[in-house]
Amino acid sequence: MDLQKLRTKAIEVVKEKLRHSVKADLLIVQAISNTEELDKSINLLSERLREWYELYNPEFSKAIESHERFVNEILSGKDLKVNDSMGSALSQKDMDAILELARQIKGLFALKNKETDYVESLMDKECPNVKAITGVSIGAKLISLAGSLERLSQFPASTIQLLGAEKALFRHLRNKRNLPPKFGILHEHPLLGKVSSKNKGKMARTLADKISIAAKVDIFKGKFVGDMLLQQVEKKAQELKR
Amino acid sequence: MDLQKLRTKAIEVVKEKLRHSVKADLLIVQAISNTEELDKSINLLSERLREWYELYNPEFSKAIESHERFVNEILSGKDLKVNDSMGSALSQKDMDAILELARQIKGLFALKNKETDYVESLMDKECPNVKAITGVSIGAKLISLAGSLERLSQFPASTIQLLGAEKALFRHLRNKRNLPPKFGILHEHPLLGKVSSKNKGKMARTLADKISIAAKVDIFKGKFVGDMLLQQVEKKAQELKR
Repeated sequence: MDLQKLRTKAIEVVKEKLRHSVKADLLIVQAISNTEELDKSINLLSERLREWYELYNPEFSKAIESHERFVNEILSGKDLKVNDSMGSALSQKDMDAILELARQIKGLFALKNKETDYVESLMDKECPNVKAITGVSIGAKLISLAGSLERLSQFPASTIQLLGAEKALFRHLRNKRNLPPKFGILHEHPLLGKVSSKNKGKMARTLADKISIAAKVDIFKGKFVGDMLLQQVEKKAQELKR
Repeated sequence: MDLQKLRTKAIEVVKEKLRHSVKADLLIVQAISNTEELDKSINLLSERLREWYELYNPEFSKAIESHERFVNEILSGKDLKVNDSMGSALSQKDMDAILELARQIKGLFALKNKETDYVESLMDKECPNVKAITGVSIGAKLISLAGSLERLSQFPASTIQLLGAEKALFRHLRNKRNLPPKFGILHEHPLLGKVSSKNKGKMARTLADKISIAAKVDIFKGKFVGDMLLQQVEKKAQELKR
């Protein structure tokens, strides 16, 4: 009987713990993964929209590269057909089926923007220091790759430097002929584009150093030092330009 | 000079031909491919929606299997949280980000239904006989696999029987140890589920025979014989039950 009580109590304690285990960084992980999946869906559906629409007006689709602009312009009716177009005349009903798809894609673009804003507001609260150095997208992806802000703050800089490059790293470890990777997701950082290619590894390491510090400050709710850290990496980028 | 004129004229003729090359079956191919891609996007985004929502109310997500019902119920606010739920309390802003995603997924479901209706109306006009035997989805996929209704009508029944099983067929041809496939996309046909498993190949062949006849009738705009053909395959299915 007492055993039964103990069991009930134990389950209650675990449930209570679970209830409080969701921190903002878990929401960041969900939201940033969602924006990546929205991107995938948008591309898949936009390719179809173009192929379909090209039956009607191929010249217009070829002239516009950005999916978002293409969707907006055919929805606003700006897609004037050239006189000697190779496209066929379509009935209103056929056009409607195409425009419905365009409307949904537009909705997905809007959602992606909203979710990105949401991630930004979460990061402003949870990890302003990391965000100052990495920006929204890279910062959120680092947290997502690490699993949580707490785990990110426990990683050494060398691990942060290679987050997202696991495949290349293990290929190197299995087979010494491949060079080790110099950076993972950090290759998306704008400062990496500013330094000469032989210095990219060094730049990634500097970034990882400062991100590691920033994550530790964020997890212990220290005061904002992001601007100072950013200045330091920007100075390093200047030195590594040549 | 005359050569220049000839060239311009030739281009005009080709453009004119292209303009008239879009027949309803090309629209069927686009629309049915679109519904398949919508399915993919819906599944991708629904998996994310569930994972995200489970931070708040895991018990509810686990209780509902259908993505469509899940989306509708959390949007209608019917997702009452059980008292001792393991989920965390989320702020309104956090919930809004999740519900926005649910709203978009709902829009994608609605679009899929619309596009399916559209395909049905096109098939009623273009290939009522094929549709009578196969239904909307399989018929449209057969046209999509063949490339056009015209090509489908030129295929022998043995080819129609294996449309969509190309991978298994070539695996068999390369390597005689694998048995040849007995059917491709036709495995989705409800009548195939009604016959015993050793007769499935025969049933698929009967279906392919009649689809081949139906496609020929449709391409030459013959009168409607779909009901008669359907009766014949249904009779065959009765015979092949055991």
